[in-house]
This record gives sequence, C-alpha cells and structure tokens, in this order.
Amino acid sequence: MDRSVIIVGGGPAGIVTALTAKSVHPDKSVCLIKSIGDGVIPCAIPYMIHTLSDPKQNSMGNAPLDKAGVEVITSKVVSISDGEAATVVLESGEQLTCERLVLATGSQPTFPPIPGLDKQGVFSIRKSLSSMVALREEAQKAKQVVILGGGFIGAEFADELVKKPGTVVQIVEMLPKLLAGAFDDDFCDEITAGLVEAGVKVHTGTRATAIEGNERVEAVVLDNGQRLPADLVILGVGGKPNSQLAKEAGLRVTDGGSVWVDSYMRTTDPRIFAVGDCALKRDFFTRKEVPVWLASTATAEARTAGTNLYGIRVLRKIQGTVSAFSTRIGNRSFASTGMTRKACESEYFRIVVGEAEAPDRHPGTLPGAAKIRVKLVFANRGGTLLGGQMSGGPSVGELINSVAIAIQMGLNVRSLDTMQIATHPLLSSAPTVHPLINAAHHALAQLRASG
Amino acid sequence: MDRSVIIVGGGPAGIVTALTAKSVHPDKSVCLIKSIGDGVIPCAIPYMIHTLSDPKQNSMGNAPLDKAGVEVITSKVVSISDGEAATVVLESGEQLTCERLVLATGSQPTFPPIPGLDKQGVFSIRKSLSSMVALREEAQKAKQVVILGGGFIGAEFADELVKKPGTVVQIVEMLPKLLAGAFDDDFCDEITAGLVEAGVKVHTGTRATAIEGNERVEAVVLDNGQRLPADLVILGVGGKPNSQLAKEAGLRVTDGGSVWVDSYMRTTDPRIFAVGDCALKRDFFTRKEVPVWLASTATAEARTAGTNLYGIRVLRKIQGTVSAFSTRIGNRSFASTGMTRKACESEYFRIVVGEAEAPDRHPGTLPGAAKIRVKLVFANRGGTLLGGQMSGGPSVGELINSVAIAIQMGLNVRSLDTMQIATHPLLSSAPTVHPLINAAHHALAQLRASG
Repeated sequence: MDRSVIIVGGGPAGIVTALTAKSVHPDKSVCLIKSIGDGVIPCAIPYMIHTLSDPKQNSMGNAPLDKAGVEVITSKVVSISDGEAATVVLESGEQLTCERLVLATGSQPTFPPIPGLDKQGVFSIRKSLSSMVALREEAQKAKQVVILGGGFIGAEFADELVKKPGTVVQIVEMLPKLLAGAFDDDFCDEITAGLVEAGVKVHTGTRATAIEGNERVEAVVLDNGQRLPADLVILGVGGKPNSQLAKEAGLRVTDGGSVWVDSYMRTTDPRIFAVGDCALKRDFFTRKEVPVWLASTATAEARTAGTNLYGIRVLRKIQGTVSAFSTRIGNRSFASTGMTRKACESEYFRIVVGEAEAPDRHPGTLPGAAKIRVKLVFANRGGTLLGGQMSGGPSVGELINSVAIAIQMGLNVRSLDTMQIATHPLLSSAPTVHPLINAAHHALAQLRASG
Repeated sequence: MDRSVIIVGGGPAGIVTALTAKSVHPDKSVCLIKSIGDGVIPCAIPYMIHTLSDPKQNSMGNAPLDKAGVEVITSKVVSISDGEAATVVLESGEQLTCERLVLATGSQPTFPPIPGLDKQGVFSIRKSLSSMVALREEAQKAKQVVILGGGFIGAEFADELVKKPGTVVQIVEMLPKLLAGAFDDDFCDEITAGLVEAGVKVHTGTRATAIEGNERVEAVVLDNGQRLPADLVILGVGGKPNSQLAKEAGLRVTDGGSVWVDSYMRTTDPRIFAVGDCALKRDFFTRKEVPVWLASTATAEARTAGTNLYGIRVLRKIQGTVSAFSTRIGNRSFASTGMTRKACESEYFRIVVGEAEAPDRHPGTLPGAAKIRVKLVFANRGGTLLGGQMSGGPSVGELINSVAIAIQMGLNVRSLDTMQIATHPLLSSAPTVHPLINAAHHALAQLRASG
C-alpha cells in the first residue's frame, strides 16, 4: 500500500477525520487530498464580505494537519476504485493505494432552472479564497443585490451585505417563510423582522424566472411579475452531495444522491468511509434521509470515522443528525436543534410544546440585556425531548448545545424541570425564570392539565 | 387548617417553591411568609454598587407571586412546630396552621473572630434594599476598601468596587488561592490575574486579626504584620444555614448546621420540607454534606419540593448538587461544575483530565473573539464525566450548562467525543476545534496511551 489512510476532501469533515485518525492510530500514515488549494472556513464565508477586514483571515491553512504529521496533496481526484486495494487516481494520472479510504468530498451548490445564470455579476458560493475575494470586490461596488434562496446562507449573506450603507439587498424565497427548514413560523417571522429592520427587502412565496441583462446582470424577474433591479445576484438555493466518485466506483448512493453509510460511516465497502456533506444523513428521530449539511454534524461524523477506521473501537455511533444550528441575524441570535413543531406535525409525532421567555441577564435592567425566547418540543407520553428553538442574545449560541446534548442523551421533560444549571447576573437568565427550565415547566403544566 | 401550604422565606428557593406548588396544585392555598420586606435578587447584589444605575433595579417584588395567586405575608417567623398540624408562629403572636410547611429560611453571613467588627464602615452582605443602599453610599465615598474573604462574593465585589476610579481595593483570603472551592489552581490564578489587572490588590495565605479605628474603621491588620488602610470593610468570609426554627421544632439538623432532608427535600417530618441554603446539600458524586449555596441549586430543589408536596409525583429526585456556577471577573467569564481535579485527588477518585482551548468565534480574527479554555475531569475507567471548569468570553455562562446537564445525565467521555453541537462563526468556537469536544478528545488520547 502507498498509504495507510487516504482522505479525499479538505473541508472540516476531511480535516477532522485526518486529525482523529492520526491521533487514534499514530502508527498509520494519513494522507489528505484536497482539490481546493486556497480553502476557507465554510461557515464564516458570509463574513468575508464586510465583517472581516481581510478575507485572508478566513483562510483554512494546513498548519494543524502539518503539525499532526498528515501528508497533504493538492489535486483533484478523478476516480476511486475498491479493488484488492482501495485506489485513488489523481488528476495527473498518478495512482495511490491505501488500506482505508475516506470520502469527504462535500457538496456543491445547485442552480435554479432559469436563463441568465451565466451573466457577469451572478455568483454561487464557492469555498475558495479566490472566489470569495472576487465576490467581495463585487459586493463592495454593488448598489443592488438580489439573493436567490432564503435559507441560512441567503439570510446570513443578506444580513452581511446590508451593512454597507446605500446597498439595496433583496431576498427571494419560494417557500412562505425564510429558514423554514430549521424553525417554526414564529421564529421565521422574527428572523424576517430582523432582516427587514436591518433594511433587507424580503420576497417570500415567489421564485425567480429569469436573470436579465446583457453581458452583465441588470435585473431578476420573479414569477409574481416583479422585476428586481440588480447589479449583483447571489445564489443560495440549495446544494447536492458530491457522490460521483463513489457512484462510479460502484458504492451505493441513496435516492437523495448521498453516499450510503452505516452508523459508523462505512460505505458498502467496509474499507471505504464517507463523512460530511457527501454522506447520508439520517434524521435523529425518524432515521429518514435528510439534507442537513452542517459542519458540526460533519465533524461529529469525522470523529466517529477516524476512531473506527481499523475496527469498531467505540460503540458510540452516529444515531442520526440532531441538526444543531445557530446563526445571528440583525442584532439577534437564533438557534435550533431536533424537531420543530411543524416537523412533528408532518411526521405525526404527538407532542406537547413548552415555551418561555426571560431576559438573558438578571435583573433584566442590567446593561446589554436581551430577551431570550425558548420553545421546546416533547413527546406527549414519555416526555422525551424532541427539539428546541430559541432566539436571544449571543448566549443562545451555546445554550442550544444544552438542548442538543440533552436530545442525544434522551432527556425527559421531568428531568429537565429539576435540572441544576449555572446562572449569573451578567451572563444568564435568573435561576428562578431560566427559559430552558421554564419551557419544561410550561410543557409539564399542559401534560398535567391533559391528565 | 388556615392554609394548605406555608412557605417560610422569600428568597429564590421560597419563591420558586411557591410558584411550583401553585402551578402543580392549583386548588391549594399557598402562603409565603418573608421577613425582609425590601428583598433583592441575591446573585446581583455586587452589581448594585456601580453597574446598576439605581439599586432599586435589583428589587425582588411580589408581582410573580401575586399573579400566581400566592398570598404574601411580611413578618418574622418566631417558631414552628410539627404537632397535629404544622404550625407557624409570627412575630405578632399570630399562629397559622397548614397541611404542608416548607422552610426556605436561607443562610446568613458568618463573622471572623476578630475585634473591631462593630466599627462604622464594616459591612456584611444583607439581602435587603435598604442595607445595600447604605453600602452603595459608603462605596461611592470610599477611597480604600478591604474585602475579607476571597470566595465569589469577595471577588465579585472587588471587581465591581474597583470600577470607580481612584478606589484602592484589596482582598484578603486565608487560603493560598481565591475561589479555591470552585476551581483548580490554574483557574484561580487566572481569576487573580484578572483582578490584579483591573487594579485589585490580592493578599492570599493570610487572615485579618483586627479591624482598627475609633468609631470608624481606619485599617485592617493581617497576621503577616501588614496593616491595610481602610475606610470601608466588606465581610465575605462565609455563611451558615438558618436552621434554628427547624432545630427548635425538633427536626433533625446535620453536623454542618443544615436542615436534614431526603432526596425529595422532606425533613424528618414528611409534612415539612426544606429547600435552598438552609437545607442539607449533598455532593453529587460522594453524597457528603457540602456547603454549596447557589440560587441555581436552590431553585432546582424548590421545583422538586413544590412538585412533590402531596406525594411523590415525579421520581426525579435531587441526587446531589453539581455546584454549577459562573461568574465574571475583569473582562473574563469563569464557570465550574462537578468535581475539580483537586477535589478528585482529595477524595481518591482516579481520573483523567482533558484540556483544550480555542477562540470563541471562528475564525479567531473576528472582532470580539476571546479565548475559551476548558478542563474536563473524567473517571479513568468508565469514562464518566465528573466535572468541568472553563474561562472565556460571556458564552461560557451557558457553555457550562452543557457540562452541568451532561454530568446529571451520566455522560461518558466517548459519547462526548462524537457529540453533535451547534456552532456559528459569530457565536462559538469552530466545530473542528470546539474545546468542549476537544477536551474529551484529549482525555481519550490519554486513556488510549495508558492502555
């Protein structure tokens, strides 16, 4: 074998697999092959436009890999095969064999089926420094930006772009609400209100039918007849897993286009693993395939794969994704994990919903206090925690992780009601009214009332 | 019976017991008797000095109790008895009987055995608006403040008092480190460095032997011979449970002076409950009595008592306190829960310690980023999470609660290593290096190395 372990892909999933593999199996040679030489931290891409003074600050260098002794090759991989040894063929034609192969090939943006996508000034989001430097230059000149897609990429870009005074920013989303996949309508509305207050124009329930202009984009036409003038268009309408290499090698690919994996991230060939956006994601509660592509899910998968490359050492498997997610829009933070009320209804889960709100400092008169709002969803018999959504100040970015961990550990509403938590006047809600606990209490009151 | 439920004490434990009792047993009359008419939110007392523009902003009014239909009586309780009906005797001589009695009588400051405590300008911390207004007035005039006691009350007061330019603030702690009860030495040192940087003078390993002056305090004399000039002295050397009423009524009181309670907060008379600072606290892992008086522990006990007044309805018992605690000193936040390395060593727990640090935003070049440092302690065989300590930006105030909840649910290091958490560039560390996960990873690497 040329290498013990080869990892294809240099995003968070690939990097964490490499670091974990090297840490758990220090005697094995680990090689990471990445196609993008100037990679960036994916989650922070929107903040390369204005918030970061220099886009290079978001570069994802090789230092952690070098330090761990991981070999890094920058090349496109043109094919893999699962013959006697797993084999990787590079762009140059060079072939590398290995004992264990990990696919961390990520996802790529999809495009709406409309004319005009090839005009100058139309950008999809690519995870390289050069493409983002180009977009930043356009954004700094742009007067009228239209963003197609109102998921978190679209909302974060809108929030960032509108920071430059004089820029008209508009979002177009075909669903009735923004971020409808992660939140119930009440939180979607709060997010929309935050964007509107920041100056963004939001168009929901409509879709683009054409991008107009000569060489350069001039407007986006909507199916409701509106024509939105634009000198910059950003596409954030969705993505698809990069599973072509796996498919061509004969590995199983799901209906959703992901590389099929078991609970330990093994493909149909147990020597070949897949992690991150390219790998099958199952919902934590239904085990149905879900298109949830989050770096935090990807890195958890990467740790599982990296640990178990040479046999299942740790029985902690990926039971499914809890879609733990946070963002900041306007001057509010939002976070979500597990099932929304909406998801429970469409999947026929019988539930009780607890809601609570409180200032995130105590007393609420302390400088800088913001209102936290928490909504928790529980199964209405056993009381198992199914999901949580929240908005508030920056602290919800970590508060959501109490909920994410509690879901993964099977927390019950009655346990949460008497859970001990830390509180401090300058850092959190009061212990008497903490919304995490009070949302459980609110749910319990309903369970008692319903007998 | 005059009342269904009587609660003695108007602090967080009493209030939450009353609200829970009324919520779970809406048909029962609930009466709360409090001795302090102008109570304040205890945790925020230090911030009544400068941070709050008006100390009244920290008042704890009766509004939540009134709204829930809880009767409030302001009176000292001079005795209780557990005869045929539990009886409470008020200062006026009036007697009230009830079906269930809850003692939430709190704790009171203790005093060092030194001369001069009666001089003007010497203050202990009382939980009333009037006493805090008096201290605030003194603090605004004071030029030289000496604080006796380097626990969290002393440290928070020092941090607050030094905000007034021109004030010399000194802390005296007899132990070798500040906050030695909640943190290992490395975190104690970081807290001390923060105070010193803010301008506080810290004296450890020494104790006061006298407070000097004529009518008014002029200096504090230490056992190392130093004489610290002072026009204001604040006492924060400790406290003791208010268990006198219980003791006189023949209820069992522990060696530590607390009202003995079972796992459901019942005293030796099952009709009489005790919650909060006056009630026995057991360590979560050793079940030994510990002097941990936190509002967050108290309110968890209050919810358990309020739910189970008329029979054990919820088998979620208080298994012991995890001492979940956070604070802010200088420009850093600190938090702790469960066992420290030091506590494990003195209790002969065999452990492995995982440590990690990372910026609390990603990339760390984002404006406002602070370094988070996390230390987790695990049992070295089963890998059960025993405790966590951290420092960082404000987000550690909620990050600690992931650890507190995980301890209460019995999380294992291997599960934490592959736990899914939410991350966002503006709100948290990167998913590739989140210190909560990486501390687990660090611990696992040591477990592997030791076979």
